[in-house]
Amino acid sequence: MSDPLNTLPDPPYFAVIFSALQRSSIDADQYAAVAARMQELATHQPGFLGVTSVRGENGLGVTISYWSDAESIALWREHAEHRMAQEQGRGLFYKAYRLEVCRVDRVSRHPAAASAPTTSNESE
Amino acid sequence: MSDPLNTLPDPPYFAVIFSALQRSSIDADQYAAVAARMQELATHQPGFLGVTSVRGENGLGVTISYWSDAESIALWREHAEHRMAQEQGRGLFYKAYRLEVCRVDRVSRHPAAASAPTTSNESE
Repeated sequence: MSDPLNTLPDPPYFAVIFSALQRSSIDADQYAAVAARMQELATHQPGFLGVTSVRGENGLGVTISYWSDAESIALWREHAEHRMAQEQGRGLFYKAYRLEVCRVDRVSRHPAAASAPTTSNESE
Repeated sequence: MSDPLNTLPDPPYFAVIFSALQRSSIDADQYAAVAARMQELATHQPGFLGVTSVRGENGLGVTISYWSDAESIALWREHAEHRMAQEQGRGLFYKAYRLEVCRVDRVSRHPAAASAPTTSNESE
């Protein structure tokens, strides 16, 4: 979870791209707590491979979660506590969002790695 | 280009997820000029549908470009000026990156829209 360009298996695998505009009126502590809890829960879901998350200064955030198969994504979508968080997202946190379920067919990396590193220690 | 949750056609369509760690030694003006030029060039490529881009405070950035088909992605990858920028990316700008080519199979939005808005004007 600590490596933003985390190790993933060879494709094909699946990605959920969540692009969201935060409300300006957001309770930052509440949001951070819910986001951290969801990342922790997702980590223990079957088929979870990793997550990359970035938030810009303008309230736009992109979180990409990676999964081994489409069934695992459907299970996570229906997870009871996750469904409550989805409701909070729509009611409290997000002005607008777009969620895309994708199949990743091809990957390239720099630096190229026969087996990708588990920690980010490339020199500049 | 100005709407980060831009209007896209119904799936399937294609996405290129570019996740990158910037070097700390980067020339910010040079980087901004190359990035803006690449966005402008991409906009005029066949099959280009839109782009969503976020950079966090820690140097991690995610740019997702959207395309109508895999052939358009291949054309853009081989574009001469884009290839020069790719070289600059590896040599000057990025410590590490991951590039994933995906097929988007399913999309949901909030607020739900029969036809997605072209400008972001939802109330909080």
